[in-house]
Amino acid sequence: MSNCIIAQSGGPTAVINSSVVGLLNANKEQKAFEKVYAGLNGIEGILNKNIIDLSSVCDEDIHNFRFTPSSGLGSCRYKLKDVNSNSKEYESLIEILREYDIKAFFYVGGNDSMDTIAKLSKYARANNIDIKFIGIPKTIDNDLKFTDHTPGFGSAAKFIGTTALETYLDASVYINNGIFILETMGRDTGWLAASACLAKINDKPVADFIYLPEAAFDRIKFLTDVKRKFEEQNKVYIIVSEGIKDENDNFVSEFECVSQDNFGHAQLGGVSNYLRKLILDAGVTTRVKALQLGILQRCAMHCASDTDLTEAYNAGKMALKYAVQGETGKMVSINREVSEPYTVSYSLVNAEDVANNVKYFPTEWINKEGNFVTSEAYSYFEPLIKELPSLTFEGNLPKYRVFNQ
Amino acid sequence: MSNCIIAQSGGPTAVINSSVVGLLNANKEQKAFEKVYAGLNGIEGILNKNIIDLSSVCDEDIHNFRFTPSSGLGSCRYKLKDVNSNSKEYESLIEILREYDIKAFFYVGGNDSMDTIAKLSKYARANNIDIKFIGIPKTIDNDLKFTDHTPGFGSAAKFIGTTALETYLDASVYINNGIFILETMGRDTGWLAASACLAKINDKPVADFIYLPEAAFDRIKFLTDVKRKFEEQNKVYIIVSEGIKDENDNFVSEFECVSQDNFGHAQLGGVSNYLRKLILDAGVTTRVKALQLGILQRCAMHCASDTDLTEAYNAGKMALKYAVQGETGKMVSINREVSEPYTVSYSLVNAEDVANNVKYFPTEWINKEGNFVTSEAYSYFEPLIKELPSLTFEGNLPKYRVFNQ
Repeated sequence: MSNCIIAQSGGPTAVINSSVVGLLNANKEQKAFEKVYAGLNGIEGILNKNIIDLSSVCDEDIHNFRFTPSSGLGSCRYKLKDVNSNSKEYESLIEILREYDIKAFFYVGGNDSMDTIAKLSKYARANNIDIKFIGIPKTIDNDLKFTDHTPGFGSAAKFIGTTALETYLDASVYINNGIFILETMGRDTGWLAASACLAKINDKPVADFIYLPEAAFDRIKFLTDVKRKFEEQNKVYIIVSEGIKDENDNFVSEFECVSQDNFGHAQLGGVSNYLRKLILDAGVTTRVKALQLGILQRCAMHCASDTDLTEAYNAGKMALKYAVQGETGKMVSINREVSEPYTVSYSLVNAEDVANNVKYFPTEWINKEGNFVTSEAYSYFEPLIKELPSLTFEGNLPKYRVFNQ
Repeated sequence: MSNCIIAQSGGPTAVINSSVVGLLNANKEQKAFEKVYAGLNGIEGILNKNIIDLSSVCDEDIHNFRFTPSSGLGSCRYKLKDVNSNSKEYESLIEILREYDIKAFFYVGGNDSMDTIAKLSKYARANNIDIKFIGIPKTIDNDLKFTDHTPGFGSAAKFIGTTALETYLDASVYINNGIFILETMGRDTGWLAASACLAKINDKPVADFIYLPEAAFDRIKFLTDVKRKFEEQNKVYIIVSEGIKDENDNFVSEFECVSQDNFGHAQLGGVSNYLRKLILDAGVTTRVKALQLGILQRCAMHCASDTDLTEAYNAGKMALKYAVQGETGKMVSINREVSEPYTVSYSLVNAEDVANNVKYFPTEWINKEGNFVTSEAYSYFEPLIKELPSLTFEGNLPKYRVFNQ
């Protein structure tokens, strides 16, 4: 019996390890492969033969790993070059996979990882190599096409919603309150920022305004809205996505971009401080606080969505099933069957269609003013943040287990 | 039968409302006062007669309020002037208390609030006014003297520990990791930053270095330590308190101080960005991330310590008991009887001794290098972060209830 391998790539999420355990457990049941190997640090690690045998790890460690946030197999941001410009990498990788008698390769990641799956499966087909390549979706940004949502998003949304509630309360305690700006991640899409609409007290959203990259940001209108709201209620609570753009399609915080990552994506962040300065300069009030959630929103297992964890697990499980069925070059996708009661099914999409593509927050779900979301957004988000996981504790803090160190 | 009043002051914590409910429920049992009033926005609100009757609120609302973070009665940063320079405020306040037939005044707060309790009780005694004034401790900073610790601290420590674990994992996923700096609050004291020592993976603290205001910060030594550690393990995880000072007793982040609060305390923050710049300028690595936890650490009820919630509740309960016994001008204090198994008792201290005083992190609990804590710190912190609260959920997010809006 031959083996399979799984690896993780791109930015971490709270539930990315669950997909690995889903696949591992499915293989235990089905005995499809002799061993489930894990490549540490994605294909970058596999190319260095940094490979461990996950099937020999004890159940307790696997259980704790399942409920450990962040990429417990390590990650990479390694983009395979086009096969025509550099086939050597492809050859090296296949040689290593053959050495380990690997017949299926699973990659948990976002659109760049699906690009890797698409390229490798194409290469294998062209060269008659009998190895299947299947992608398992993962990104807090929720920006993958052809899937209702992505594992990792629900947990990030749950943390953002919870944090929005709690920081709103903290920012509302004085007679003279100020303006509070909470900045979420999300790159070019507004899914994460929009999910903050779920934070409500007495059935009223705590956010007064939500700004998304999908609605052109108008500085004058922003200041007018904020000023009016501040005069009306003596406090304003604002949610902003790091990637908002103005009418000329330029990032509002563009000048704060300090670097680009290895894929050439702009590293955003800092737009909340920019908005803070706008408000201060306009003299609306002198009390303006900006808070960037930063990486907290993608690793907060202590506030994860159990629905998200379960779906991540099932996506791993389904990936194994599809590989056994002989599929390759595909990504597992999640289809929402019904929102209430919430039910999903799993199917496959071409990894190539997902790769280097972006699913934007629907503009029909943004109000006319461009500063809030509509009721469709609530129905979409609500089931994704259901239930909390049962974590194991040690010394009164969660007990986490990883394999990359 | 006469009435009593309770109000909150200063910065919020996750458990400050629990003290209010503890007092309210104790009064239900003992029927010591006819009504328990709440002053909204501290004495600033009471002076404006912004007063509600808490005893008439339904049980469900009170239960949710108990598990709601941040000052649900509103807060203020209002310092009473010396009675000799302005007795009018004192007279107005007493007049209002008399109007409501109030015989006991409870103030949940930190050292500035204890100053208020000391002044008001002294004024009442000098003028033969039969109203008792009792303080209930509250501050995430844990900097009140004559109490083993303060309600609010354990929950903040639990959030910091959890977050340290999770961000450490997030910051360790690549082959080439960088340096991560997590900044906590704490003003002049290092309690909050030190509590991050509890975050361990495989029994090893995730933090390589912890910098506290109680150990003079040496920039040269810092860079040497960080460089050595980075060369050794290709990543460094640093915890820093916002209030660290150099050998001349100047705040390291001093030039980043943007303002002072109403009490003349410097508003700190930004030292992690300063350290980040130090490391970048020294050329140790180009990958350095800094994250300020900001207000998240003081309002994260979703990650609160149940021990802390219980003690906050009991402190409120004891305050009522002491007032009934005729005490005044005192603060409820928590005494640790045993650390293992952890047991506490409650007693009273003079509010005046607590006011305008600071309890520092013990220098004996800091290692010789000045960059970590000793084992005594673990034993001190560990019992304070025990267990999670059972929260009520609504729409998959915690259901919070406040009275100040």
